Amino acid sequence: MRGRRAEITPTEPALVRTSEGIVITVLHARDTLRTDAPLVQCLTNTVAAALSANVLLAAGASPAMIDTPEEAGDFARLAAGVLVNVGTPTAARYEAMRAAVRGATDMDTPWVLDPVGAGVLGHRTRFVRSLLADATLAAPTAIRGNASEIAALGGGGTGGRGVDTAHRVADALPAARALAESTGAVVAVSGPVDLIVSPGRETWLTSGDPLLTRVSGTGCALGAVCAAYLGLGIGKHDAVLAAHAHLGAAAQIAARSATGPGGFAAAWLDAVHHLTSAEIADLVSWKDHS
Amino acid sequence: MRGRRAEITPTEPALVRTSEGIVITVLHARDTLRTDAPLVQCLTNTVAAALSANVLLAAGASPAMIDTPEEAGDFARLAAGVLVNVGTPTAARYEAMRAAVRGATDMDTPWVLDPVGAGVLGHRTRFVRSLLADATLAAPTAIRGNASEIAALGGGGTGGRGVDTAHRVADALPAARALAESTGAVVAVSGPVDLIVSPGRETWLTSGDPLLTRVSGTGCALGAVCAAYLGLGIGKHDAVLAAHAHLGAAAQIAARSATGPGGFAAAWLDAVHHLTSAEIADLVSWKDHS
Amino acid sequence: MRGRRAEITPTEPALVRTSEGIVITVLHARDTLRTDAPLVQCLTNTVAAALSANVLLAAGASPAMIDTPEEAGDFARLAAGVLVNVGTPTAARYEAMRAAVRGATDMDTPWVLDPVGAGVLGHRTRFVRSLLADATLAAPTAIRGNASEIAALGGGGTGGRGVDTAHRVADALPAARALAESTGAVVAVSGPVDLIVSPGRETWLTSGDPLLTRVSGTGCALGAVCAAYLGLGIGKHDAVLAAHAHLGAAAQIAARSATGPGGFAAAWLDAVHHLTSAEIADLVSWKDHS
Repeated sequence: MRGRRAEITPTEPALVRTSEGIVITVLHARDTLRTDAPLVQCLTNTVAAALSANVLLAAGASPAMIDTPEEAGDFARLAAGVLVNVGTPTAARYEAMRAAVRGATDMDTPWVLDPVGAGVLGHRTRFVRSLLADATLAAPTAIRGNASEIAALGGGGTGGRGVDTAHRVADALPAARALAESTGAVVAVSGPVDLIVSPGRETWLTSGDPLLTRVSGTGCALGAVCAAYLGLGIGKHDAVLAAHAHLGAAAQIAARSATGPGGFAAAWLDAVHHLTSAEIADLVSWKDHS
Repeated sequence: MRGRRAEITPTEPALVRTSEGIVITVLHARDTLRTDAPLVQCLTNTVAAALSANVLLAAGASPAMIDTPEEAGDFARLAAGVLVNVGTPTAARYEAMRAAVRGATDMDTPWVLDPVGAGVLGHRTRFVRSLLADATLAAPTAIRGNASEIAALGGGGTGGRGVDTAHRVADALPAARALAESTGAVVAVSGPVDLIVSPGRETWLTSGDPLLTRVSGTGCALGAVCAAYLGLGIGKHDAVLAAHAHLGAAAQIAARSATGPGGFAAAWLDAVHHLTSAEIADLVSWKDHS
Repeated sequence: MRGRRAEITPTEPALVRTSEGIVITVLHARDTLRTDAPLVQCLTNTVAAALSANVLLAAGASPAMIDTPEEAGDFARLAAGVLVNVGTPTAARYEAMRAAVRGATDMDTPWVLDPVGAGVLGHRTRFVRSLLADATLAAPTAIRGNASEIAALGGGGTGGRGVDTAHRVADALPAARALAESTGAVVAVSGPVDLIVSPGRETWLTSGDPLLTRVSGTGCALGAVCAAYLGLGIGKHDAVLAAHAHLGAAAQIAARSATGPGGFAAAWLDAVHHLTSAEIADLVSWKDHS
């Protein structure tokens, strides 16, 4: 979702209808989100918590930032979707995350893992690996990160430090495939073009605006919105795709009027709130390979 | 303060002057807040902390987010008002809350309880009940919550899950009365129409805009502003009413220009900053029963 | 940086070129920051964390809010600059701060101390003093605070409670000098006019706008931006001066269009993002004494 504006050639339709079924599912999802207002429990970092709650509210979901060991497990049994984002982690929040995933496991509730900083920071990388390795817990329904984080978890990363972020998303493809195969999760790699990988299906999504990278927490908020769409009970690959398309299209709208990251952040929330399915279809494009 | 825009019929004056004395007190309070800049200590959740500080600053108060066990008690002895909001609670912050209420008790400083999530979340509900039951601590000067939270604390709630939030505020009336009687606190139930209950007095306030429900932390910020108005040393029912009128009127101003929740949040802060007593009087209406 | 708008007489050039060398260094710094994107580790309070990250991103730096005991020390060995801000301190974050300063010491990385609340709050004042007294740790490269905080750490403060904040900055001069001498740090006192003191050099900077005092966390964000400029490897007095000039000039731009603190905050971020060296030079003025 991040990075350079999508270059869409005039002869290419804005929405590549590679599959009518997929398009219809994704478009309906945005409307359903507004109607259903799924309850999304977020265990997330303190820096992105307020923005994530505001993006969820703007989208039409009901956020609940319940992240203590005493409350997280029980609440996960009520939620439609759960986000586990490992930024600014404390010992207590780690414990709460385990409890929430246990609750989600018990109720077959979708949960999203956002492995912020995995690879760079050893302590949280070990925590994430231990969550993934715990056979008594359900695997995450989706894993969302940037190319480095996915490469760190999935292996096969190049370890390269190229400045071309777009290239790095492609570099993470083997790792994303491996992680999707080993966990069964939808694995999303965010960048100038987003890559969404499931066992047997890969989607490349073009949307967003570079100003997203100048606002703190937009990636974390995307993880929360993935949990919201997954909470609708639609197909999980489509749900993750719909979340990326929704926030990415909103960034394109916001960039039309914004003159900097402060105004952009407010305009982005406004666009997340107002966007219709038809507008999303006009703004983003994706290609499916299966 | 939340919910649908007030429907004021053309024949009804915008400000129902049920009591000249009340009107004058409430109107003066906004000016006094700007002049006195009361020091407001907030022990609040991490999601709403920044917005609460910004709303206090916009209103003219001096926020201090002092919420550790080591510092909270001493600081409460300096503050003009104290907010205890039990969202995202940690063991340390619970301890800090007890210390702050002890400091407020010692100095006869007003304090506000915002029982976020009471009823739904057992752990914090027990903490809130234990604060209220501790005979060595002063009772809260005010308790502010939504209908479900007040029903959970005051009993007598219907437990209904009606989608009409306005009705739910009315449903919480018996609980609000019981809680006001048992604690002596002013009990405020926020909704499309706000209900403010003291032993022997009930006020229904019409103000606000539905976009308030699409910005995270606006209710929490209202609790903080209640503590600011209480810090002025005016009558406590009037102080809580003035806080609701101030933020609700600001929402009405903000909604005139906002096209979504992002722009609304900024415009709301601007209006909280600029609003004069005369503007508040023109924008809100209330009815007193005693 | 805070407080009244600078009164610049028409006959005085906007930029007092007391030293061509200094001007050139400071002006180049803003461009270099955009190019180098220094990695800035922030251990800061939960209230100001999101704003600080957003200001760093707007300026062109790369923020990383790594503040746990397990991760902070290792990460400080990667960062270009480290911020230690003692607001909303927890026991774990204190421990993380010590680890981060140890990492910065090992790598000779610049670090900034922001002693929020020093003097008023005993517990954190003792922590700050213990950091400064630990002979195994490098002294902070810069210390940034308001007049009361610097007076509390440097001694010689008047303890006065004058309402004229401008005067209070001047009152803190002896304390700032003493603190700069004893630690070797650049000591910055923020106010309507900023005072920046090194052993053998003192700069008075006129910039900013009073609306900065109506937005929570702007001073904390300034500390973070000091760490970013210090991460460029330029002279440390110049780096701290450049940070104050950048954010102060941005406030002057923002105040032209803002009608209140909500719109101001967004416009300030936009201006931090867009400001060029030439614009900063036109907007601020300073005088050096050495």
